[in-house]
Amino acid sequence: MESPVLSAAVAFAATLLAPTYPESETAGVRGEGTLADRYRPAAERIIRETLAGNDAWDKLETLCLTVGHRLSGSEGLARAVEWAISTMTRDGQENVRGEKVMVPHWVRGEESLTMLSPLRESLPMLGLGGSVGTPPDGITAAVVVVEDEEGLDRVGDAVRGKIVLFNKIMPPYDAARGAGYGETVHYRSHGARLAARYGAVAALVRSVTARSLHTPHTGAMRYGDAETRIPAAAITVEDAERFARLQRRGTEVVINLKMGAQTLPDVESANVIGELRGRERPDEMVVIGGHLDSWDVGQGAHDDGGGCVIAMEAIRVLRKLDLIPRRTIRVVLFTNEENGLRGGKAYAADHAAELERHVAAIESDGGVFAPRGYSLECADGEREALAARQLEDIVRLLASLGANKVTVGGSGADIGPMKEAGVVLLGHQVEGSTYFDVHHTPADTIDKVDPTELSQNVAALATMAYVLADMPGRLGEPIRPAPKGSD
Amino acid sequence: MESPVLSAAVAFAATLLAPTYPESETAGVRGEGTLADRYRPAAERIIRETLAGNDAWDKLETLCLTVGHRLSGSEGLARAVEWAISTMTRDGQENVRGEKVMVPHWVRGEESLTMLSPLRESLPMLGLGGSVGTPPDGITAAVVVVEDEEGLDRVGDAVRGKIVLFNKIMPPYDAARGAGYGETVHYRSHGARLAARYGAVAALVRSVTARSLHTPHTGAMRYGDAETRIPAAAITVEDAERFARLQRRGTEVVINLKMGAQTLPDVESANVIGELRGRERPDEMVVIGGHLDSWDVGQGAHDDGGGCVIAMEAIRVLRKLDLIPRRTIRVVLFTNEENGLRGGKAYAADHAAELERHVAAIESDGGVFAPRGYSLECADGEREALAARQLEDIVRLLASLGANKVTVGGSGADIGPMKEAGVVLLGHQVEGSTYFDVHHTPADTIDKVDPTELSQNVAALATMAYVLADMPGRLGEPIRPAPKGSD
Repeated sequence: MESPVLSAAVAFAATLLAPTYPESETAGVRGEGTLADRYRPAAERIIRETLAGNDAWDKLETLCLTVGHRLSGSEGLARAVEWAISTMTRDGQENVRGEKVMVPHWVRGEESLTMLSPLRESLPMLGLGGSVGTPPDGITAAVVVVEDEEGLDRVGDAVRGKIVLFNKIMPPYDAARGAGYGETVHYRSHGARLAARYGAVAALVRSVTARSLHTPHTGAMRYGDAETRIPAAAITVEDAERFARLQRRGTEVVINLKMGAQTLPDVESANVIGELRGRERPDEMVVIGGHLDSWDVGQGAHDDGGGCVIAMEAIRVLRKLDLIPRRTIRVVLFTNEENGLRGGKAYAADHAAELERHVAAIESDGGVFAPRGYSLECADGEREALAARQLEDIVRLLASLGANKVTVGGSGADIGPMKEAGVVLLGHQVEGSTYFDVHHTPADTIDKVDPTELSQNVAALATMAYVLADMPGRLGEPIRPAPKGSD
Repeated sequence: MESPVLSAAVAFAATLLAPTYPESETAGVRGEGTLADRYRPAAERIIRETLAGNDAWDKLETLCLTVGHRLSGSEGLARAVEWAISTMTRDGQENVRGEKVMVPHWVRGEESLTMLSPLRESLPMLGLGGSVGTPPDGITAAVVVVEDEEGLDRVGDAVRGKIVLFNKIMPPYDAARGAGYGETVHYRSHGARLAARYGAVAALVRSVTARSLHTPHTGAMRYGDAETRIPAAAITVEDAERFARLQRRGTEVVINLKMGAQTLPDVESANVIGELRGRERPDEMVVIGGHLDSWDVGQGAHDDGGGCVIAMEAIRVLRKLDLIPRRTIRVVLFTNEENGLRGGKAYAADHAAELERHVAAIESDGGVFAPRGYSLECADGEREALAARQLEDIVRLLASLGANKVTVGGSGADIGPMKEAGVVLLGHQVEGSTYFDVHHTPADTIDKVDPTELSQNVAALATMAYVLADMPGRLGEPIRPAPKGSD
């Protein structure tokens, strides 16, 4: 909880630091000052009331404990869709509905990895989403450890008939550079295709994390143009290190990999939508959301139950406070982000005709740790630049939450398909130092979520969505006086 | 690696801070200054040469990768005994031998825990060492979550026919108070006995750790005077939290627990011994060591492969430097610390006649993180007090390693049985903030060990053992001039 005195002090300090923009860019109407000035009373009310108590934790706990994980095609995801619709209906939201999306149906099946030599041991593993399975008795072969693609090219045909382990190390989290996910996830995505080229019979990847307690991390893989589809699985950092050390010592590692993975016919799922209809221009809207699906382990608490819940809760809080903005705030809980992005693609396609009336779309898909601010991107560079300056103004309202950092570049996977239509896309950013410890693992569970931080995320998102939906001009456009009669 | 310049600076600073003791307590012989003064050249040489390169890492890697885990009664422990004997023989140690000890032979067997309601999910678990098994189809029952013994007493007979989960939270590591292991391990040790009193059919414990990535922690349990022996297992922090939250929400959790655990007849094992024989009083000795057994998961890298290896390496380094102390340094690698302490008890019993000539015993069993210093305890309070002052002097030699903290109280489980004979017992202390993250888990693997820190431990232990074995008088006794002709 924020101390009210501290909040006031921070708000005052923020005022002193307020940048001075040309009034046409950021001011509401003549004489009303910047957006931050204009919306400070509403923002303070949203933040104060949200931090004093809200239903986000109850929503997230219900999702995590009674729905559980929810991979595309699973009963869990079907339950999650039902839960989201009934919850937003109960919250009194408008136009609550599921919008049909056909999603892939990959199933893990029974799987195991047994080290046969030099020691006999059963090792934890997780098949990668999209992988084919092995024959029923599994694949028994020696392991060849390489660090990366270059290393694979160096050993080349020596991997024929063997299992390639990509032992790419993810660097520790760095506050300036962020997590090293992007540098390492390549081998999870493409390792099987790369290894198959040289005749490998299966591919393993070191789990994509910088910290491990013998926990495997799953995630999506793709075969692309691969001629041969070989099974792919993640092993723990510990076992990847062990295999690499054994290889350096000249000791051959032989394993048996069994995977019952298969891809079944597509299944019907849905993007779940609920709205706080705008009071003045309801056909213009700000989309906020996350993705409802998760991997088939853990509870998908941070990825991305939290993102869904803070969006659902943001409009509940605004409605409760009777803060009905000019434009509509539409919550979209996308389906199938993890292994297909079918939800994000379907939303952009099905709503193509109204995307020009989407003034912004905000996705939260980096966990619900302490909020830090917003990233943005827009296909129209001029609009992006102006939107960035306006956001710099607006986030002054979030200083007491620590959510006042604006960065240009990047938003969210599900809203990405709206980019080419020119929608301004925002990423809800949070503290990121431990996200990848639990990402795509059985450890992504509600005990990793801090209730206060969850509330801070609701407060930040509700405030941002409210301002964007209510401000007189559209985000990224010079602001003209509001239509007569408004306010 | 320590910078030589920095080392020298630290050593100089230590000189300035040197306490002034009565010469009779700490001085070598008249005019030779304190023990630290007397042994500084030797200590600096040991530290410099050890940090410049040693075989500890190679030893630990060999133990971890080619022997692996090694629970009492297992082939792994038999391999570890052979490895330790052959390694110390190859190192040129004297009197290398295994001293027979009969050890318990508990086996885990196949085991599983399946949540049946409210969701169906397979959960990671580890049966506790010493537990009985379940019938072949397992035990299916509802779970009752209690925090502690008091909580159990409150619900009382309501647990009849049910499975009790002790959800005792281990507090986060605190530099001043240390880890909260002692406060929480009680339920791992005694939970089954306590729950059986009220008619529970099995006991679960929240894994004893403050940090978890869905990793279960095993460890020993005891039935004591229990009339009914019910199976006991550890579940992850995440699942313990989940069960507790579900109970608070009024949702019944039903699980099936299957354990193939059983206790087989005792098996022959051995304490492994190797010596650096003293040049002057070889029948007096300083024991240094750790325990060779581990739990049946992971590699027992920190617990306690590291403790064994630094002792083995300490006498190899001293022998290589031709630093042969007056007294013998005896490495003892105890068997069966984890689930019986038979090795420690056997050593004290078998060597009862020579314990009066044990001037000290040092155990390292807290991992091989950065060394911090030594704890000590002695049944003779006067000797303990004098030994503490002498140690305060000696550890000034370890300031460059950061291993210069002396605390009174506590040493090591395996050397504990020597206490009543009046032996001065020392615990080799290390930085402890992450030890319990991996303790008794599959994540206690060599990748968690830092090679530089491992070397620092060797250097600290070798120095301490050398000084204690060479100092003119015995630790804890006023120092008299050394016998004529020595030095």
